[in-house]
Amino acid sequence: MEISIIIVAGGSGTRMGSSTPKQFLGLAGRPVLMHTIEKFSTVLPGAEIILVLPQNQLQQWEQLIKDFSFNIPHKSCVGGETRFQSVKNGLEKVNPNSLLVGVHDGVRPLVSSNTIKSCISLASEKGSAIPVVMPADSIRRISKDKNIAVTRDEFRMVQTPQVFKRDIILSAYQKEFNSSFTDDASVVEAEGFDIFLCDGNYENIKITTPSDLIIAEALLKKEPN
Amino acid sequence: MEISIIIVAGGSGTRMGSSTPKQFLGLAGRPVLMHTIEKFSTVLPGAEIILVLPQNQLQQWEQLIKDFSFNIPHKSCVGGETRFQSVKNGLEKVNPNSLLVGVHDGVRPLVSSNTIKSCISLASEKGSAIPVVMPADSIRRISKDKNIAVTRDEFRMVQTPQVFKRDIILSAYQKEFNSSFTDDASVVEAEGFDIFLCDGNYENIKITTPSDLIIAEALLKKEPN
Repeated sequence: MEISIIIVAGGSGTRMGSSTPKQFLGLAGRPVLMHTIEKFSTVLPGAEIILVLPQNQLQQWEQLIKDFSFNIPHKSCVGGETRFQSVKNGLEKVNPNSLLVGVHDGVRPLVSSNTIKSCISLASEKGSAIPVVMPADSIRRISKDKNIAVTRDEFRMVQTPQVFKRDIILSAYQKEFNSSFTDDASVVEAEGFDIFLCDGNYENIKITTPSDLIIAEALLKKEPN
Repeated sequence: MEISIIIVAGGSGTRMGSSTPKQFLGLAGRPVLMHTIEKFSTVLPGAEIILVLPQNQLQQWEQLIKDFSFNIPHKSCVGGETRFQSVKNGLEKVNPNSLLVGVHDGVRPLVSSNTIKSCISLASEKGSAIPVVMPADSIRRISKDKNIAVTRDEFRMVQTPQVFKRDIILSAYQKEFNSSFTDDASVVEAEGFDIFLCDGNYENIKITTPSDLIIAEALLKKEPN
């Protein structure tokens, strides 16, 4: 089965207190993004990997590829102003023969093999699949001048990869951008499709702060899952 | 100002795959719980610390105190079947002169000084204070046969310590137990009091899995905050 994985990495280093974009920061000796790409290449050999980066980071990425002799085949493509536009740009590069398209955050290198396989398997059956985990903390909902406890069991924390049949995600991304689109599932859902959930892995964190980088480094030393 | 901190540690080692209760597991060379107690003792010198443990763990705790020459003053008290009952038991030990009572999860040793101070300060002004952080992931709400995206900005992830004026938490805990009580704020809220939010720290995780222990170990090596 042909599979395409779009890896979106649009972040700056602002919250990291660094001028290096977070996807390029060193993690166990290599840029975060290389770990992410390698994970998909290992779990899904032969899958098409499309990397979406801001225009002003493409050159730096090319240099990193040389510096680290990184040789995993992938296409690069220029992102947009929003994550929505970046994914849309990535979708244009997708091989028309692909049956499934997954979208993954470049700064989630700790996605497990099981998470990736579960998403692929469920999406090929149902048309969509996103990995979720139970919230570890209590949750409150806030409004202008109030906040109230909600029933934690009714909520799930959403990770990536978010995987869809190619036709479904292509048609969903024809829409105009809407600020309620926080991830691909919300775009596909707005098109009227049901979203199916599978188990993510708790380690599959999004690296956005210096603490996250420390956490990721420690988790990488664990045995692979 | 007199302050009492109730530290609740009711967990078993089940999710850890260990026969040792998670609060007793080693973290940077000492049981998790000792880090937690020390943090409050350092940030709030003179505060009364009340540790609530299951009946069958008290003896082991006494032994650990000897083994590690742990000399931070605290009272121990026996927990109940539920977290609600454990907190209620702890409340019975609170010094009647205390103006504020904080309740903290024993397995959150990484609470920052700032988080503790913010909660104390806000609670002494408003009557209640709980630390929250923005969710790092998208969130979905699930029901019997559907799940939908929610607006992430409207939600906050809740941590501890949850701090209240003594009268408020005492009166709230007079109620019968209700399964919607996932934390102290939900109990106090059910009594009709408003809950006030302050900034938690992302590192303030609840240690419940082996990965969490690895994460905590790595974060402890960072400079203190």
